[in-house]
Amino acid sequence: MVAPSFSFDLQARQGKARAGCFHTPHGDLLTPVFAPVGTQATVKSLTPQHLEEIGASLVLSNTYHLFLRPGADLVAEMGGLHSFMQWPHPILTDSGGFQVFSLSETRKIDADGVTFKSHIDGSTQRLTPEISIQVQEKLGADIIMAFDECAPPYDLAYNERAMQRTHAWAERCLQAHTRPDQALFGIVQGGIFPELRKRSAETIASLSFPGHAIGGLSVGENKTEMHATIEVVNAILPEDKPRYLMGVGTPEDLINGIARGIDIFDCVLPTRLARHHAAMTRTGRLNLMNTANTHDQRPIDETCSCYTCRTFTRAYLRHLIVAKEMLSATLVSIHNLFTLLEIARGARQAILAGRFEDFAQSCLSPTKGVSP
Amino acid sequence: MVAPSFSFDLQARQGKARAGCFHTPHGDLLTPVFAPVGTQATVKSLTPQHLEEIGASLVLSNTYHLFLRPGADLVAEMGGLHSFMQWPHPILTDSGGFQVFSLSETRKIDADGVTFKSHIDGSTQRLTPEISIQVQEKLGADIIMAFDECAPPYDLAYNERAMQRTHAWAERCLQAHTRPDQALFGIVQGGIFPELRKRSAETIASLSFPGHAIGGLSVGENKTEMHATIEVVNAILPEDKPRYLMGVGTPEDLINGIARGIDIFDCVLPTRLARHHAAMTRTGRLNLMNTANTHDQRPIDETCSCYTCRTFTRAYLRHLIVAKEMLSATLVSIHNLFTLLEIARGARQAILAGRFEDFAQSCLSPTKGVSP
Repeated sequence: MVAPSFSFDLQARQGKARAGCFHTPHGDLLTPVFAPVGTQATVKSLTPQHLEEIGASLVLSNTYHLFLRPGADLVAEMGGLHSFMQWPHPILTDSGGFQVFSLSETRKIDADGVTFKSHIDGSTQRLTPEISIQVQEKLGADIIMAFDECAPPYDLAYNERAMQRTHAWAERCLQAHTRPDQALFGIVQGGIFPELRKRSAETIASLSFPGHAIGGLSVGENKTEMHATIEVVNAILPEDKPRYLMGVGTPEDLINGIARGIDIFDCVLPTRLARHHAAMTRTGRLNLMNTANTHDQRPIDETCSCYTCRTFTRAYLRHLIVAKEMLSATLVSIHNLFTLLEIARGARQAILAGRFEDFAQSCLSPTKGVSP
Repeated sequence: MVAPSFSFDLQARQGKARAGCFHTPHGDLLTPVFAPVGTQATVKSLTPQHLEEIGASLVLSNTYHLFLRPGADLVAEMGGLHSFMQWPHPILTDSGGFQVFSLSETRKIDADGVTFKSHIDGSTQRLTPEISIQVQEKLGADIIMAFDECAPPYDLAYNERAMQRTHAWAERCLQAHTRPDQALFGIVQGGIFPELRKRSAETIASLSFPGHAIGGLSVGENKTEMHATIEVVNAILPEDKPRYLMGVGTPEDLINGIARGIDIFDCVLPTRLARHHAAMTRTGRLNLMNTANTHDQRPIDETCSCYTCRTFTRAYLRHLIVAKEMLSATLVSIHNLFTLLEIARGARQAILAGRFEDFAQSCLSPTKGVSP
């Protein structure tokens, strides 16, 4: 069911790039938007205050993880995810499908759903389209996702089967969904195969989803294949509903996705890289552990206005990393997320001002940004 | 040398409790004051912004750790500790003595100093009174400490020797100290032995230190012995200079120290306990890992106004801990430090208002505060 509280206003276009506003019960999402990932109901090492300060609007949390721990009933009892993690702005939950299918050693798929072993205690668990929706309704995010199957990108036969299952499950998810204050998005699958992607986009677009997602990318295919797939799918998905590219990305991926009509992104990369000492910049990664930073009084990125870059030197960040201080994860996460949020915000402003191409080129140019 | 930039105004007294103001080049310390510990130039898991928000004024950092990593020269090159860690308010560094003497297996003491093995790489290192002062001058804290020897509290012969050495080294530290923008504090030693403590306080007080510290407490003695020792020493230390009780404490220790005329405290306990799931309250500790917290919608302390207590439930904090999320250390550290800072602030207000006894009793009463 499509809730009256959800609507998507397309505010500007330039080529295929779009600027829009997706209205949700917890506030408006100005698109393009990048969503930091808070797997276990926390964006690792950051407080909600930090997220407010970097201007995050949408946060993603993972149904698989919350289903196993602390459990959807507990989250519901605590007033839902917004209240539990104290994020009063929009939240998106995925369906659990991606994580479950990643457990390739310990899961069994049948037509009805998936049985798998918990990575926490080895207990046997089961997710079906209906259970996934039920769990996501208990979690209470604004945007929830259909339960889908993500196949390895180059296996044609598997992708055909997984796509069929994804389509059947999409309809069951729509049937199962009851909360009018949640927008259920359908997911397009089909690996790197244009024919499958085309059929999948047509099928998913024909259902009554208020928004659509592209799954099964950034899972091993190359950039050319990723871009071609986005183009095939977005040529079919309706213009008047938001499009979400799942699990992507890097600064470059954001620009390339936006240029092809994507509105919403999420990725663990910025926070994961931060915990592994890598700073993201528009022009590449900086390994802060490198001895070259020992005496470096510059911030990570001299063009960046995040708290970390306004305040700390590379020398200090390197010291924290070498000394195994947790603060390094916090400070580099702030910077990395800010970098992606700023790219999304910059892209939006550029689209509204009719200068997206220049913006994209300035972001992708190897001559701009920080030196190594 | 006593810097003109340092002076101590006694603003009020009640019994032996004092409220004062210690002027430093990086701002005024309103006493009594509790200093969070930032061992490696970072209060673990907190940004300087967090420290500002909880109202910290003085931060302690450890000479031993910074001497080994990243080294005093690097910190000096980065503009000193204030600039390096971006704490623009007063900083205190200890002398390295306490950590070096804790390395009982790998250190050799002679009349001139201590040779020891680094806990990081096993390299042989040496600290003397002169080296400690030189290192602390490079670090550039506002308050620096004389190089002392802390002996096991019940060993009389050892305490006699360590005290003699501490006194000789105190004079050498005064000789070695050159920066007028740093206040060098002398340290009283002597274990739990009143006669030694008396002699040590008289000797240290007779030198020209702008402030005095009591070392060798909270190292194994009981509370009665701690309180008796503070009383013996404070009866001798001059009233017109600040008194710092090193490495203490708990909420109870703060009240008891303030009641006996202590002005400055520091302790790793609040942040260390936070990383081990324990919340400090005025009436005891709360193990947040406990299953009793699973469904608990209350904050850690319903009477506390810190960010953590204003924002998060015990149930959420327990979830973060069980899920091994770093954010738990940050949030519980904020609460624990705030609790001690508030006790120091509350004590100060009470002394200024002539109602310290009531305040102390309300803090120490087992009937007040959070339930288990």
